[in-house]
Amino acid sequence: MEKKTWTQLWLDYKKTKTSEDLSFLTEIILHGFSEGHPVIQNTLSELQLGIGKILGAEPAVKPADECEGKADRGLVIIKDEELPEEGYKLKRTGQESVMLSASTEKGVLYGTFCLLRKLSLAEDLEDPDICTAPENPLRMLNHWDNMDGSIERGYSGRSFFFNNGEIIVNERTRDYARLIASIGINAVVINNVNVFGEATELITGRYAEPLRKMSEIFAGYGIRLFLSLNFASPIELGNLPSCDPLDPSVIRWWEEQMRTVFDNIPNLGGFLVKADSEGRPGPFTYGRNQAEGANMLAKVIKPYGGLVIWRCFVYNCRQDWRDRKTDRARAGYDNFHEMDGQFDENVILQIKNGPMDFQIREPVSPLFGGMLHTNEMLEVQIAQEYTGQQIDLCYLIPMFKEILSFRTYVKEQEDTVADIISGRTFGNRNTGIATVANTGDDSNWTGHDLAAANLYGFGRLAWDMNLTPEEIAKEWISQTYTLSPDAAKNVLWMLLHSREIYEDYTSPLGIGWMVNPSNHYGPSVNGYEYDRWGTYHRADHLGVGVDRTDKGTGYAQQYNEPNASMYNDPQTCPEELLLFFHRVLYRTRLKSGKTLIQHIYDSHFEGYEKAQELKKRWESIRDELPEDVYPRVLERLDRQISNAREWCDQVNSYFYRISGIEDEKGRTIY
Amino acid sequence: MEKKTWTQLWLDYKKTKTSEDLSFLTEIILHGFSEGHPVIQNTLSELQLGIGKILGAEPAVKPADECEGKADRGLVIIKDEELPEEGYKLKRTGQESVMLSASTEKGVLYGTFCLLRKLSLAEDLEDPDICTAPENPLRMLNHWDNMDGSIERGYSGRSFFFNNGEIIVNERTRDYARLIASIGINAVVINNVNVFGEATELITGRYAEPLRKMSEIFAGYGIRLFLSLNFASPIELGNLPSCDPLDPSVIRWWEEQMRTVFDNIPNLGGFLVKADSEGRPGPFTYGRNQAEGANMLAKVIKPYGGLVIWRCFVYNCRQDWRDRKTDRARAGYDNFHEMDGQFDENVILQIKNGPMDFQIREPVSPLFGGMLHTNEMLEVQIAQEYTGQQIDLCYLIPMFKEILSFRTYVKEQEDTVADIISGRTFGNRNTGIATVANTGDDSNWTGHDLAAANLYGFGRLAWDMNLTPEEIAKEWISQTYTLSPDAAKNVLWMLLHSREIYEDYTSPLGIGWMVNPSNHYGPSVNGYEYDRWGTYHRADHLGVGVDRTDKGTGYAQQYNEPNASMYNDPQTCPEELLLFFHRVLYRTRLKSGKTLIQHIYDSHFEGYEKAQELKKRWESIRDELPEDVYPRVLERLDRQISNAREWCDQVNSYFYRISGIEDEKGRTIY
Repeated sequence: MEKKTWTQLWLDYKKTKTSEDLSFLTEIILHGFSEGHPVIQNTLSELQLGIGKILGAEPAVKPADECEGKADRGLVIIKDEELPEEGYKLKRTGQESVMLSASTEKGVLYGTFCLLRKLSLAEDLEDPDICTAPENPLRMLNHWDNMDGSIERGYSGRSFFFNNGEIIVNERTRDYARLIASIGINAVVINNVNVFGEATELITGRYAEPLRKMSEIFAGYGIRLFLSLNFASPIELGNLPSCDPLDPSVIRWWEEQMRTVFDNIPNLGGFLVKADSEGRPGPFTYGRNQAEGANMLAKVIKPYGGLVIWRCFVYNCRQDWRDRKTDRARAGYDNFHEMDGQFDENVILQIKNGPMDFQIREPVSPLFGGMLHTNEMLEVQIAQEYTGQQIDLCYLIPMFKEILSFRTYVKEQEDTVADIISGRTFGNRNTGIATVANTGDDSNWTGHDLAAANLYGFGRLAWDMNLTPEEIAKEWISQTYTLSPDAAKNVLWMLLHSREIYEDYTSPLGIGWMVNPSNHYGPSVNGYEYDRWGTYHRADHLGVGVDRTDKGTGYAQQYNEPNASMYNDPQTCPEELLLFFHRVLYRTRLKSGKTLIQHIYDSHFEGYEKAQELKKRWESIRDELPEDVYPRVLERLDRQISNAREWCDQVNSYFYRISGIEDEKGRTIY
Repeated sequence: MEKKTWTQLWLDYKKTKTSEDLSFLTEIILHGFSEGHPVIQNTLSELQLGIGKILGAEPAVKPADECEGKADRGLVIIKDEELPEEGYKLKRTGQESVMLSASTEKGVLYGTFCLLRKLSLAEDLEDPDICTAPENPLRMLNHWDNMDGSIERGYSGRSFFFNNGEIIVNERTRDYARLIASIGINAVVINNVNVFGEATELITGRYAEPLRKMSEIFAGYGIRLFLSLNFASPIELGNLPSCDPLDPSVIRWWEEQMRTVFDNIPNLGGFLVKADSEGRPGPFTYGRNQAEGANMLAKVIKPYGGLVIWRCFVYNCRQDWRDRKTDRARAGYDNFHEMDGQFDENVILQIKNGPMDFQIREPVSPLFGGMLHTNEMLEVQIAQEYTGQQIDLCYLIPMFKEILSFRTYVKEQEDTVADIISGRTFGNRNTGIATVANTGDDSNWTGHDLAAANLYGFGRLAWDMNLTPEEIAKEWISQTYTLSPDAAKNVLWMLLHSREIYEDYTSPLGIGWMVNPSNHYGPSVNGYEYDRWGTYHRADHLGVGVDRTDKGTGYAQQYNEPNASMYNDPQTCPEELLLFFHRVLYRTRLKSGKTLIQHIYDSHFEGYEKAQELKKRWESIRDELPEDVYPRVLERLDRQISNAREWCDQVNSYFYRISGIEDEKGRTIY
């Protein structure tokens, strides 16, 4: 086998000093599961690799009938039908025995990765006493990979799924599956939600062979393959004159096509659909609503157990900047809220975390509190489209935690976003969480080495939403690098402060969008101000911000009480979202006692300063870092500092020029 | 022959009612010129076509020996060695005879086109009494065509010179040559000044055959072919480690290469070079100055009579927007002024009309008054990169006239730009005028049908700089369309007001650059404000404009007196350039009595209104226009109106928001 040109990230098992002798783990007793099952095969390989490297001794499987699952030495893997489908139990059953029980092979796989993580982290195995199951039924990655090999909003090289119109299935496909299974991901969409050209043909026979192969590799790691679908396929592939979801000939075409797809790829999980969004075709074209579009597909694929994941990113992207009544933030709720209860059981609405588009600070989408009888999935984006593009460091797990713990007041309790997407709130089964992935074929997978913490963190958080950003970061650091406690603390500081730093030097107080149009990196305060995208800050010489209260666009009223009132009043609106909800004068005092304009100046200078501190901390631990990693990250930190300086100076200069108000501290503004 | 898919523009000879019977012109007597000379052949064909169509009777050539050039009936073409090289004389020598005399075949050709023009315009031939020679030695088109067939800043389709890495020589090449010869163009650069890829190889044997063919067609119309040159050719083609112009091996390489080129293409006129400009390689890389670079090439090609046309578009395109000392406007003068007298006789500096880059309003480049011992050529741009991109109507001849009549005060008299580029001021021979061309393979050549008036006008003006924009427009209209006097007046109104209208709704008072970066169409007030291109308006809540006086960047001091003082003082600075030279407060009163801000509001509303009037006038003459032309122009006028509205609203809103000053007339500003 060729030498791999890619790293193993957090699965780069290293010899670890454990507090006790765990060599008994090299004896594996398998009970109730077949050694030949693909998932068990992969589990055993992983144990071989992991235990072999961590403990420095190769494990071996002992025939289960020797001990009937009651061995007092070894790692005993045993079936327990009581446990939930993907759950597992890890228990110290004796001085020299650990029991891993699960009801399914997937549970065994997840339990195994948990055990290996504990070993890697040198955690105490005295009494692990873990009994866990994932909170989210679907834990999904959305890759925006195009079939030519490019990746929309990809910052880590090219696709490892596609090249030149062909599908790639190789050793890296397997490592990818291992990596994401180890953090609990169970579903993957491999192609861009914007489906065009050859990608439309993924549902034809043309790519059946490699897709089946890929889906089988994935299935061996408990992962279901999904595809993004072109709603206009009946026209583009079937030569039909329309793709009206209520047209019988269109439905017949889909039935025929879907029979073929599921015949070709029996493991296929279903489809992700971006319809009526940013120029993509959809039911609106035919005067049909979103439910009619989604349900048509859902009914067609129901016999195969397929899911339709329907994105709610529907808004008018041809807005007139002069128009202050239309509010893009309202669009998701306005388009979907009234259809609550109309979607089929195997349809899931995939809702972006905020009402706009993955800005560094947005309120949580009101749709989460706006639908009581609809399957919902949260969509976040670890691809750092608006958050530094894997040049600037931005550990996003703190943001995700905030989103998940947001109370929707849709019920008296169990009403957070986490509750809703886990299915707890309404007792539904088809729910979950998805992220736009941040991977590519760069050797380190994520371009910025530290951006792998977002991939790791997403998976871990999707499984257990009670984990803290700090716990997750510590886990990731320890498994990825071998550092002294002090050095690890520096990396931890970098990760945990990075989001705040990025927010400080970019757009202030939730207003967003002060970014270069089209490439979305670097500042352009007015870049979207006179454009068609519904993204305005409305700054003038007196103040800045959008009035989204009951006196403005009324967006705040899309929330349940007390959120609606809380956002509606500038006194109670969380300050970090002040300019999202309110137009505020530059001389208005914030809670800190500072004026708004002074806050803008201060936070930007501070963000730029702290960006420099990121670099200093990285330099301080140079000696402990792998030789290739240190300069690779350093180069990005340098680019981040330049970017932070541009942001700081441009935003401050813009507001200084428009307001005419001097910085109290007399720093240079241009 | 296939039906032509392109029009004949102003050479679409139509039957014309002449005031007297001119049928005697069908007898052509050729004396002193050989019927076999390519230029004479083409002249006779043109007479055949033109006289045939205009008078409706085919002309025939009578052997000259029959009459010894003293025929008393017919068009007598006769040699007169006294006349200047490209000049001619047209004289009524009798009731039934006209004499066209010239010293060269080119003179005959130009005289013939003059005669045909007079016939087309139904001008009196009683006593034409024309004795003319072109004012500018070089009258040149610069095509920015790439070898893949695209055209940089091209708005009229694709290249008719190149496609897919190959050169096109066909029937259209000949029509192109006819068209431009008819307006006096005598030199053409066919490839983009940014030379990359295959275009670098135009000087190798690879394209020798089609280039020779093309140059022969051109030569048949008195046109010399020029090529744009890649200064880094010794590296890219010759595999040399450097292209240092003082390196003997580099010089040897050029000598060898140039011998080949001139062997291959004996008619070749020379080379246009963009060096050390916007990322193009040049002598600066090797610590050499511009003269050292240009002279090296000039010496190498001198034996072949070749010219080096060296562009002066050298500036720092990586400026920091924070830096208020560096002034891009200064760069041309700063980079070239001190080298006056150092350039070889066969080097011509090609200087853009303004110090920036083809904005709708700029002062004339101070370089024209800054060099006494250097060959200079004026470069203008009829490709409407910043002036509406052949969507918006913008007849540029009035602008060119202003530039040409600008007094440089380099001498007491004969000191205008026209004087300098014609060679009158300093008695030099290698001078002239060039324009970036606006043609492409669109059926109508220039995308917007009315943009052909810029091509026509450029040629006519280059020949005779005393012509007025109105005379030229009238000529063009009459030769292009068959209109009633009223309808012709409407088209004339459209042309003559178009520049002012465009200026009114775009960036105010000479400040420029409020345009979308990269595509250069449509408004973006801050689009270049925080960028690296040296193009800033510096607007804040009090005022706008760049201080280029002696208290600012000192640019005004690059002019000779009294210009320097005139520009330096806001009281004497021409108001249309006020913001180019001065920072002005919004409440400052202009000569009209209006405040600056009110002027901005008024001119923008007015420009938008007048753009609508353009359309009304076009609609009013619908019945008289060719069926294909009317809707093609109408569609562009509609796009112009949308564009004008965007400009008007964005510029007004920007200045309203930043200044907080209300429009006195209470119109809607956003």
